[in-house]
Amino acid sequence: MTIATETYKGDEALAGLLKKSGHPADLSQIRGLLAGVVAAPEGEHPDDWIGLVAPGADAACRRQLQALRQEVSRSQKAPGLQPGPGRLVALRKELARRGLAGFLVPRADEHQGEYVPPRAERLAWLTGFTGSAGLAVVLAERAAIFVDGRYTLQAREQVDTTLFEPQHVTDQPPDAWIARHLPKGGRLGYDPWLHTPEGLKRIAQAAAKAGGELVPVEGNPLDAVWTDQPPPPLAPVIALDRKFTGRGSEEKRESIAKALAGDGIDAAVLTTPDSICWLLNIRGADVPRTPFALGFALLHRDGAVELFMDRRKFTPGLEAHLGNQVSVELPEGFGPALDRLGAKAARVLVDPQSAPAWAFDKLAKAGAKPVERDDPCLLPKARKNEVELAGTRAAHRRDGAAVTKFLAWVAQAYSSGTVDELQAAARLAEFRRQGEYFRDLSFDTISGAGPNGAIVHYRSSEKTNRPLRQGELYLVDSGAQYFDGTTDITRTLAVGTPSAEMKDRFTRVLKGHIALALARFPRGTTGSALDSLARYALWQAGLDYDHGTGHGVGSFLSVHEGPQRISKLPNRYPLEPGMIVSNEPGYYKTSAYGIRIENLVTVIEDARDGDERPMLAFETLTIAPIDVNLVDKGLLTAAEIAWLNAYHARVRETLSPQVDAGTATWLAEATRAV
Amino acid sequence: MTIATETYKGDEALAGLLKKSGHPADLSQIRGLLAGVVAAPEGEHPDDWIGLVAPGADAACRRQLQALRQEVSRSQKAPGLQPGPGRLVALRKELARRGLAGFLVPRADEHQGEYVPPRAERLAWLTGFTGSAGLAVVLAERAAIFVDGRYTLQAREQVDTTLFEPQHVTDQPPDAWIARHLPKGGRLGYDPWLHTPEGLKRIAQAAAKAGGELVPVEGNPLDAVWTDQPPPPLAPVIALDRKFTGRGSEEKRESIAKALAGDGIDAAVLTTPDSICWLLNIRGADVPRTPFALGFALLHRDGAVELFMDRRKFTPGLEAHLGNQVSVELPEGFGPALDRLGAKAARVLVDPQSAPAWAFDKLAKAGAKPVERDDPCLLPKARKNEVELAGTRAAHRRDGAAVTKFLAWVAQAYSSGTVDELQAAARLAEFRRQGEYFRDLSFDTISGAGPNGAIVHYRSSEKTNRPLRQGELYLVDSGAQYFDGTTDITRTLAVGTPSAEMKDRFTRVLKGHIALALARFPRGTTGSALDSLARYALWQAGLDYDHGTGHGVGSFLSVHEGPQRISKLPNRYPLEPGMIVSNEPGYYKTSAYGIRIENLVTVIEDARDGDERPMLAFETLTIAPIDVNLVDKGLLTAAEIAWLNAYHARVRETLSPQVDAGTATWLAEATRAV
Repeated sequence: MTIATETYKGDEALAGLLKKSGHPADLSQIRGLLAGVVAAPEGEHPDDWIGLVAPGADAACRRQLQALRQEVSRSQKAPGLQPGPGRLVALRKELARRGLAGFLVPRADEHQGEYVPPRAERLAWLTGFTGSAGLAVVLAERAAIFVDGRYTLQAREQVDTTLFEPQHVTDQPPDAWIARHLPKGGRLGYDPWLHTPEGLKRIAQAAAKAGGELVPVEGNPLDAVWTDQPPPPLAPVIALDRKFTGRGSEEKRESIAKALAGDGIDAAVLTTPDSICWLLNIRGADVPRTPFALGFALLHRDGAVELFMDRRKFTPGLEAHLGNQVSVELPEGFGPALDRLGAKAARVLVDPQSAPAWAFDKLAKAGAKPVERDDPCLLPKARKNEVELAGTRAAHRRDGAAVTKFLAWVAQAYSSGTVDELQAAARLAEFRRQGEYFRDLSFDTISGAGPNGAIVHYRSSEKTNRPLRQGELYLVDSGAQYFDGTTDITRTLAVGTPSAEMKDRFTRVLKGHIALALARFPRGTTGSALDSLARYALWQAGLDYDHGTGHGVGSFLSVHEGPQRISKLPNRYPLEPGMIVSNEPGYYKTSAYGIRIENLVTVIEDARDGDERPMLAFETLTIAPIDVNLVDKGLLTAAEIAWLNAYHARVRETLSPQVDAGTATWLAEATRAV
Repeated sequence: MTIATETYKGDEALAGLLKKSGHPADLSQIRGLLAGVVAAPEGEHPDDWIGLVAPGADAACRRQLQALRQEVSRSQKAPGLQPGPGRLVALRKELARRGLAGFLVPRADEHQGEYVPPRAERLAWLTGFTGSAGLAVVLAERAAIFVDGRYTLQAREQVDTTLFEPQHVTDQPPDAWIARHLPKGGRLGYDPWLHTPEGLKRIAQAAAKAGGELVPVEGNPLDAVWTDQPPPPLAPVIALDRKFTGRGSEEKRESIAKALAGDGIDAAVLTTPDSICWLLNIRGADVPRTPFALGFALLHRDGAVELFMDRRKFTPGLEAHLGNQVSVELPEGFGPALDRLGAKAARVLVDPQSAPAWAFDKLAKAGAKPVERDDPCLLPKARKNEVELAGTRAAHRRDGAAVTKFLAWVAQAYSSGTVDELQAAARLAEFRRQGEYFRDLSFDTISGAGPNGAIVHYRSSEKTNRPLRQGELYLVDSGAQYFDGTTDITRTLAVGTPSAEMKDRFTRVLKGHIALALARFPRGTTGSALDSLARYALWQAGLDYDHGTGHGVGSFLSVHEGPQRISKLPNRYPLEPGMIVSNEPGYYKTSAYGIRIENLVTVIEDARDGDERPMLAFETLTIAPIDVNLVDKGLLTAAEIAWLNAYHARVRETLSPQVDAGTATWLAEATRAV
């Protein structure tokens, strides 16, 4: 984060500096852009926006632009997220005015991403809850907030429970609550931009069961009462070089368009930023930790794209990169474009898992024929090409070196007893920033000492910060966004001497991790089929963990990417060569400690003599030592010991040349054979 | 099978005998019943029907009744199932007459069971194909038959491929074929009694894609041209004693009805015979190998049942067993009963996975509100109660003794080189028939020597029969229906000395079997999550098997029962205590040998010290030795060896007292510790 050290000297002075730098000096335009810039996360490169208005501006001009940003930021600063009852009262008044008995407030934006821009933090604005998933249901007399197991504690802390009854989403799902509390004949409203058709199904049934009705609203009533709602974010959009993407956008578009045409489909609606960014080889910074440029797109059967995105956030040269098969319009143009498809009675692909209900309604009303099918970018994006895989391997080597420097630093530093969670996370980020192509962290680091490690989605704060103490475990889950790949790694360290129980648990988690790392499986196998392999050793001792075993990962895109995953939940997408997925079994003892061992792996073809089936396996991408002080060797089979020693030999050989002598010495000891 | 040794002496003579036995002598009524009796499978108790017309008749009267049955059977005998083109021609003519461009001929009856009565063998009548799953699509110019991997060879042998293009159902699904070949504007007909709404979804889309339409027909056009189609079967329906069912029907009905009422549901449509038989504690013999009494039922919210079943097949006393809360009407009364529900605008539960599309259409047209939900008997039936579990354990001890006698007999007999597949299967059935409560086999025995063992759904015939030969494997998969339980077991034997490869493969299959047998898993786990545990050891060697790992099993009901299963396929039903499921990994080397090790297991609660979760595990029900001559001990872990030896100790202790001295001696050796 860059702090402007100058005060803003006024529009006239800045206009002069801009003119001197050879740039148009339309200050009202710049202020308009800045409203969007400060509505995007600041991130690791807070000055990049200057390239949008005055690329190559001189230092004096840049300093004043920074000062102006600070000023705009202050004036537009989002109000604190501790709402009193006033917001709920205002919303209810607005609902009554519109004849609505209730309204759904999801933690979602139009793109159904995990991270949303400040403008879309409606749930936080209304309730104070800042978790990454949740739903409030507001009725005239009562309101509830539904969160999952990760967030029950946090919701109780952040939310005024006299206003919103906190509910566990699986114990008491919203549909059951709605069926009980929606008054007969009541119209329950939803913003069709913020929900998928799939997500609404059960709620519609529940409303019907209560004798009421679920109805779309035009114009979000919460937005109507959120007077200082931030505008849409405007972070710079860049082209991602072919040396990172491996395939040109034109080639991607042609191949998908051909498949659409073959299926008699005229166009595909794209609403998820990762699909659009992947297809056009662009990246942005509109949401935290993820290089998304928010927008909508239509891919036509001839390979042409209509992109609905604010051109003001394009960095110089981006339109040339997009080429003349990509036309650009404002997001407001998305609706009229669907109308045009309707007028031609076009068959339009739209994904009911990710597209807003709005798009389905719009297409149907316009006379188009919606074809409900997977987003056509979903699988091509998930199957990384050779260039992307080479990039991710390089990124993991860089990332592993940073993690190893960090681990060596922790080992040295905690012996003096002065390391705490926040210091450790900051130090780890510092090591990563030194890496080539580093852009950002890929998520807020989970740095949990002792009992904090048992909180699966823990984020350390001044309030919870805790030193690393002898006899405790320290869990650190972190990752980075590099131009050539996205990383995500968890290591668990013994601080001092671990207990026998800690070693037993760690070794069971490790056995699960190795079972997956060594697994061979026939083509066609889904991650659902593999999940139990990672749990078996824990299950035998009556233990388990309450999260998935593996999530998909993007290429300089989202750190949580579908459609593949390793999980108890059903999944219809087989693992395919080139897909990246995490391997992260864990164990959590509430109020005591947490254990997780996470490497990213990619699916590879694995043909061997004697095979009767086309077999696949995993190549481990993450390169960093696993704490052997926590291993109870007696619990491991010979094959498991062989895996661990071979992995550590690879870690040592790969990283030793990349780190300083002190770290290399530590690494040699850390990767000793067991 | 009982062969009538007398010739029929005429109606007058029989009338006299009946009168003497004290029974009404309405011969036309008896002939009417017999038409249905001979349209049911003969089974193991072909004379039970006599109890329907003349219970307690004297020997002379019984002999003449048997003679009459033979006469009716001869006159009504189904024509050979090798159709020429005539049937297809006749069907096409009928379709043209009705303005249909095509018609679907599934291998299904109104109840969607695995076994169907002769009347419903429409696919076999039309195409000659006798497998247990398949679909023909008949268009004016071309026709195709779709079968799965088990049946591709059989279909090519049985079907005239100049009339029906044989297709592999996953490589070339019917919907793709229909989308390509249905003429534009063509109406593709289906009999709504024979398809579920779920089953029609993709086909309807395909017809639309072709520019045609999928339409229900009234009256099956195939039935219209099948002039000698058998009538519905009339096998005796018996009451199943509470000592076998553990719960009275009234109690079952009350508990389910209460749940329906709680959900605001007025009635539930029941169309699967296992649900109806379970709910009413009745059994029949209308289809092969499965004690089904075919019919339909409505369960009302007050616990009353309308049963739509031909009363002529009720054994004496059955109506008293049913009680006065169960009203009985002919199957033809089912439609009007749905109309009555419609007239009351009732909310009616109906299961889209198993109920015919006809029921949905009927309810909707009548004005009822269909509620699409699981058949309410599905889960209570799957969770066996303590009495059912005690019964199944007893049945398995009896069955295991029969299997053990058989294995000892094989061991002794094949050393002289004279045993073949058919002899072996017959002998095994003989041993089972000696067991208390034996009713029937639970499926046609799979008795496969050498390469025949590699055919997963092999049925030996005079044509394929093969002796057990030295150096080969012999696979036998068999089971029985007892009043107190249904069994299903597979054993694979080394005939002489097995090769190292055979032992390697067998041991990998055994490792998979043991991984499941030893598995502990948290409550909430589905069989989909466990499937890979049974495959891991095979996968590591590049091997696999193309069938599920476990199917649910009924209590003196279907040997394949849902909703639980252990399979790669997604399944949303967690394994619950009392559910019975098979554990049957395998390995098949085409043209060489087949290996399968199958035990039935039941899910049990398994709480142990130190557990942090409510854990479940499997109790193995099947008691019979596994061939230790095929075990490569070096591939087993200590825990696996311990399981095998403990299992064999239990087999020996349980069965030795139940078998003759010679068998006991063989058993002691067969169950020696490895």
